[in-house]
Amino acid sequence: MSAALNYAKTNGETFIEELKTLLRMPSVSTDPAYEKDLRQCANWMVNHLKEIGIEKAELIETAGHPIVSGEYISDPARPTILVYGHYDVQPPDPLELWDSEPFEPVIIDDHIFARGACDDKGQMFILLKAVESIFRTSGSFPCNLKFLIEGEEECGSPNVMKYIEANPDKLVADVALVCDTGMIDEHTPTIVFGMRGLLYTEVRLKNADRDLHSGSFGGGVANPIHVLSELVAGLHDENNRITLPGFYDHVLELTDAERQAYTEIPFDAASWLAEVGVGAALPESGYSVAESITARPTLDVNGIWGGYTGEGSKTIIPAEANAKISCRLVPNQECDAVFESLKAYFNANVPASMEYELHRHGDGRPVIMDADNPAMTYAISALEKTFQKKPFLVRSGGSIPVVAAIKHNLGMDAIMMGFGVESDRIHAPNENFGLERFRKGVESSIRFLEAYTATSST
Amino acid sequence: MSAALNYAKTNGETFIEELKTLLRMPSVSTDPAYEKDLRQCANWMVNHLKEIGIEKAELIETAGHPIVSGEYISDPARPTILVYGHYDVQPPDPLELWDSEPFEPVIIDDHIFARGACDDKGQMFILLKAVESIFRTSGSFPCNLKFLIEGEEECGSPNVMKYIEANPDKLVADVALVCDTGMIDEHTPTIVFGMRGLLYTEVRLKNADRDLHSGSFGGGVANPIHVLSELVAGLHDENNRITLPGFYDHVLELTDAERQAYTEIPFDAASWLAEVGVGAALPESGYSVAESITARPTLDVNGIWGGYTGEGSKTIIPAEANAKISCRLVPNQECDAVFESLKAYFNANVPASMEYELHRHGDGRPVIMDADNPAMTYAISALEKTFQKKPFLVRSGGSIPVVAAIKHNLGMDAIMMGFGVESDRIHAPNENFGLERFRKGVESSIRFLEAYTATSST
Repeated sequence: MSAALNYAKTNGETFIEELKTLLRMPSVSTDPAYEKDLRQCANWMVNHLKEIGIEKAELIETAGHPIVSGEYISDPARPTILVYGHYDVQPPDPLELWDSEPFEPVIIDDHIFARGACDDKGQMFILLKAVESIFRTSGSFPCNLKFLIEGEEECGSPNVMKYIEANPDKLVADVALVCDTGMIDEHTPTIVFGMRGLLYTEVRLKNADRDLHSGSFGGGVANPIHVLSELVAGLHDENNRITLPGFYDHVLELTDAERQAYTEIPFDAASWLAEVGVGAALPESGYSVAESITARPTLDVNGIWGGYTGEGSKTIIPAEANAKISCRLVPNQECDAVFESLKAYFNANVPASMEYELHRHGDGRPVIMDADNPAMTYAISALEKTFQKKPFLVRSGGSIPVVAAIKHNLGMDAIMMGFGVESDRIHAPNENFGLERFRKGVESSIRFLEAYTATSST
Repeated sequence: MSAALNYAKTNGETFIEELKTLLRMPSVSTDPAYEKDLRQCANWMVNHLKEIGIEKAELIETAGHPIVSGEYISDPARPTILVYGHYDVQPPDPLELWDSEPFEPVIIDDHIFARGACDDKGQMFILLKAVESIFRTSGSFPCNLKFLIEGEEECGSPNVMKYIEANPDKLVADVALVCDTGMIDEHTPTIVFGMRGLLYTEVRLKNADRDLHSGSFGGGVANPIHVLSELVAGLHDENNRITLPGFYDHVLELTDAERQAYTEIPFDAASWLAEVGVGAALPESGYSVAESITARPTLDVNGIWGGYTGEGSKTIIPAEANAKISCRLVPNQECDAVFESLKAYFNANVPASMEYELHRHGDGRPVIMDADNPAMTYAISALEKTFQKKPFLVRSGGSIPVVAAIKHNLGMDAIMMGFGVESDRIHAPNENFGLERFRKGVESSIRFLEAYTATSST
């Protein structure tokens, strides 16, 4: 066992006490009431980076919550790793469903319960503790390190995205390391090597200055809900494929090898559905459920509203109808092109007599990592040694916009070794993190850093 | 000029003072806070009926607000008229948009401003003052009178409907007289001889126990908003006709004479649309706008909702989608049959894996009066004499469920001479009633009662 692994084992209790301190800070980024707490948390992070050896750590001010930045240059000739994570958390509501205080961490059955225990304070802390373990036992670090730890991930990372765009030189590295994803189950290590992108839009159809009495106007005027329904219905065909012209043109098709790999992933569609009370899967025609939810693009209406939605009845023809429509995109689809296609669809199909607005809420590009990146080999090996089981390489159906920006703006792959599981209940009451996975996460990360830097340095 | 007409002219000021007293009572039936005010108003109505000669007037208790009942039997062999109206009013909100106090009537430019000034206190009072004018000048009344004045019209008349069903013998008469409708314009007298019915339903589609993350589930499960949109889109064909099987089977088609009459009604579709900011009419294929909005059945989604409808974006696939769907029905469509057809449509088209509920919110049957009813001739003549202009006979696109119940349960036609116009702003701030129309309403009603009872008594 390496000195660093030994250090991590010896100091396991201290790591948890430090994590508890971090979890006590209610760094809820979506609610302005917590602004001071976010700053306090960011300052604590800066100090903690300094404590573990990253002397050049600082707060970067943004239009929103500050970014925690850190840099350790061992030797400019050596490779550089960019560590990304976030110190902000989701709101704790609904409070009454928590069995303990969300910002007073407690440990029960080797699981730590608190908001952020997993997402992302606990997971981000894994990387910090791995770095610390190597630093403390080597007196230095075998490669260069950069840290980018933001405070707005839970509200869409608006300012860190601008920061990345504006400061490519400051952030560029050989590879990024991200600990904010999950495992197939708690015994099965998992690396995410691709993520879907997201295009989120909102459409509003307006037919009248005000809601109209359905007795006086019914039969004589168009109903914007009917028109919106037709438009939504027309966006998928009978094979559950999206009808927007050119939508699939740039979709990176799965190779035979990838499709074979999908069949080996232990994913049980039936129990996956049963857990959320869904009666039947509806994958894209020609693709398995696992493929459809990770490697195929989608279009979903996330919300729809118009007219009277209260109790009982109100006899109106609504003035307006609205919908939030988003697409999960896959490599190599481009958000701009899909947005233009959606706009063209509305232009062509909204009746001339009806006004409409299509608004873009912001988006993130899809991303897929270079399969030949040697860092991937070290990550696989580190996880296999730690868990005594070969990790699965999977594509995630979700999106981390910053990971896409790291790839597209900085030209770097990100190694996403994550240790979350469904029962961690991230974003929900009683969020927790299994400490055995925390310890194995630190161990895997030390092994990865040691192997990557050892090889890269030779 | 008859003695009664002369009485009405002489006592015009007194009538308005009495109406003011009635308007000062805030009889808002939809808000429980006004319960005492409704009772006070109902009691005042009972006393007022007694004052004008209807000695047998009383309060009828219901599960909701009381009904004001009155009866005057001159001679059982003579014809009987049932007067229907309502003493309840809409809420005055939004208060800040009123230029005067909604329950402190003021007269400006010969218009009286107050909630209920037109709907229906002012209009109902027209009939009471006509009765009073004849009573006071004849010492008795030439026919029998019954009064049914309810306090729940603005909340759907639930208890008066039960009362009518339970007491047909008590209410039966030769004809009903209703003053709760409008005129084409303030110089053009109008009789409504038909009204559409209403079937109001609500549907809820459920696909999951909770909202699902669109990254984790997108592409793998059905979206209830998509399914609901398809269902809504499928309810109309490309000719704007409703696709429900059998929907048009019992529709009473317009005769050539009726269609000819429609062309003579001064209805300007362009200005009707412009007033509410609608760019184009969408009548049923083969019918004019005026026909489509009064004599043809409709299906409209009055409200739709599902998923995230707040600010910004939330990446979910909703658990549920909901819609309020209503039909305006025309003679001789039956609510039950249309509801069954809608249910069959959902049964056939909601995917088996999705749960759905179709709820019925209550309804009212369509109604059309007997064109040969002699009372209609007297009404036409009374209006023509008063306004010096031939009245138009029109069908209304709206519904008065009680009028339908009077026709279907009691077997009686209702003469609907109404004196409202658009600028009376019923249900809106600054509701008012032009006193010239009030006076002409009283005059027309006296003429009608005198002619009808004179002929029937001979």
